Amino acid sequence: MSSDPLPPEITAVTTLSSADAKWVQLQKIDWKDQTGKPRVWEVAARKTRGSSGIDAVAIAPILLHPTRPASTLVILQYRPPVAATCVEFPAGLIDQGETPEAAAIRELREETGYEGQVISISPTIVSDPGMTTANMQLVVMEVNLKEGDAEPEQHLDDGEFIQRVVVPLDELHDRLVQFTRDGYAVDARLYHWAAGLDVARKRKW
Amino acid sequence: MSSDPLPPEITAVTTLSSADAKWVQLQKIDWKDQTGKPRVWEVAARKTRGSSGIDAVAIAPILLHPTRPASTLVILQYRPPVAATCVEFPAGLIDQGETPEAAAIRELREETGYEGQVISISPTIVSDPGMTTANMQLVVMEVNLKEGDAEPEQHLDDGEFIQRVVVPLDELHDRLVQFTRDGYAVDARLYHWAAGLDVARKRKW
Repeated sequence: MSSDPLPPEITAVTTLSSADAKWVQLQKIDWKDQTGKPRVWEVAARKTRGSSGIDAVAIAPILLHPTRPASTLVILQYRPPVAATCVEFPAGLIDQGETPEAAAIRELREETGYEGQVISISPTIVSDPGMTTANMQLVVMEVNLKEGDAEPEQHLDDGEFIQRVVVPLDELHDRLVQFTRDGYAVDARLYHWAAGLDVARKRKW
Repeated sequence: MSSDPLPPEITAVTTLSSADAKWVQLQKIDWKDQTGKPRVWEVAARKTRGSSGIDAVAIAPILLHPTRPASTLVILQYRPPVAATCVEFPAGLIDQGETPEAAAIRELREETGYEGQVISISPTIVSDPGMTTANMQLVVMEVNLKEGDAEPEQHLDDGEFIQRVVVPLDELHDRLVQFTRDGYAVDARLYHWAAGLDVARKRKW
């Protein structure tokens, strides 16, 4: 970037019709429940889902370094829907014709500059199934660093402002709590991953 | 329930206008990015958010029993937005004037019958911040069981069909993968919690 970024600012929030929207839409689902009774559910859906049937991937990066603790990598980016800078795993929508694995490798490289190996891919999981059709896959990637490796260059689009933060796995939960105290919004999926790690680390049973 | 439940069925999906919707709406957000450039973001929002500013709570139950492995409790319920029976943590919207802690105790009791103590409450976290305004808090609750305790009665509303499944923590990740193979849709937040547990359990570093 050529100059210091300005603080992002929301200037207006207005109601949008599904017909005028390019990325998202509302749908009314008529369904019959388990007693045969007709019911209605309202849902938001992306208009962009491709033939893969999967909207997005997120990457849980595991950074391994000869002398530093095993860490993960989270990104900070401003998200207008929640009017805050969010702390999230690197993630992105899957391009038409792209595999989830290729999307994960591409997004990790674009958003963070790091390159790694795919260790595991989750099944398709649903992001907020009481409200939206959105789905995703979580890809765990291992990044092997050597002593003295410089932080790699990001490959961001014009107008994309993404900061990277390396966090030791054992500190992740407490660091996420601290981020919220500092005014950031933490993604629920990243938080749950950290909370699972934390439960395992502290369990007495 | 008085008779065996029928399989739920979707009979129609139609486009819905924000004006006609009762629960959700679309919004257009006009914002200025970090270069000062005017931009637009499309977002889905609940119409039901109360004065707490928080939409929902989910509960991560930890079931402790004298002779069984430490376990969690997940629920199975049909979710029209994803046209599938979902595997989720017990969860629900926060009632007007209700604290997140009270909502967690109430929802765990209604959906599962279990009563427990609140161990920790997460900060407010955002469910899918690229697409929606939705937010929530994760509440960890400990349920102490005694030898010979019967499975408690649920307190479901008419037309609510929720099954409970107790899963040992050490088996949770693999059981969630198996649920997706069996045609269920697993909630991304529950999956991430299980994946965090699994990373901690298997880590070599």
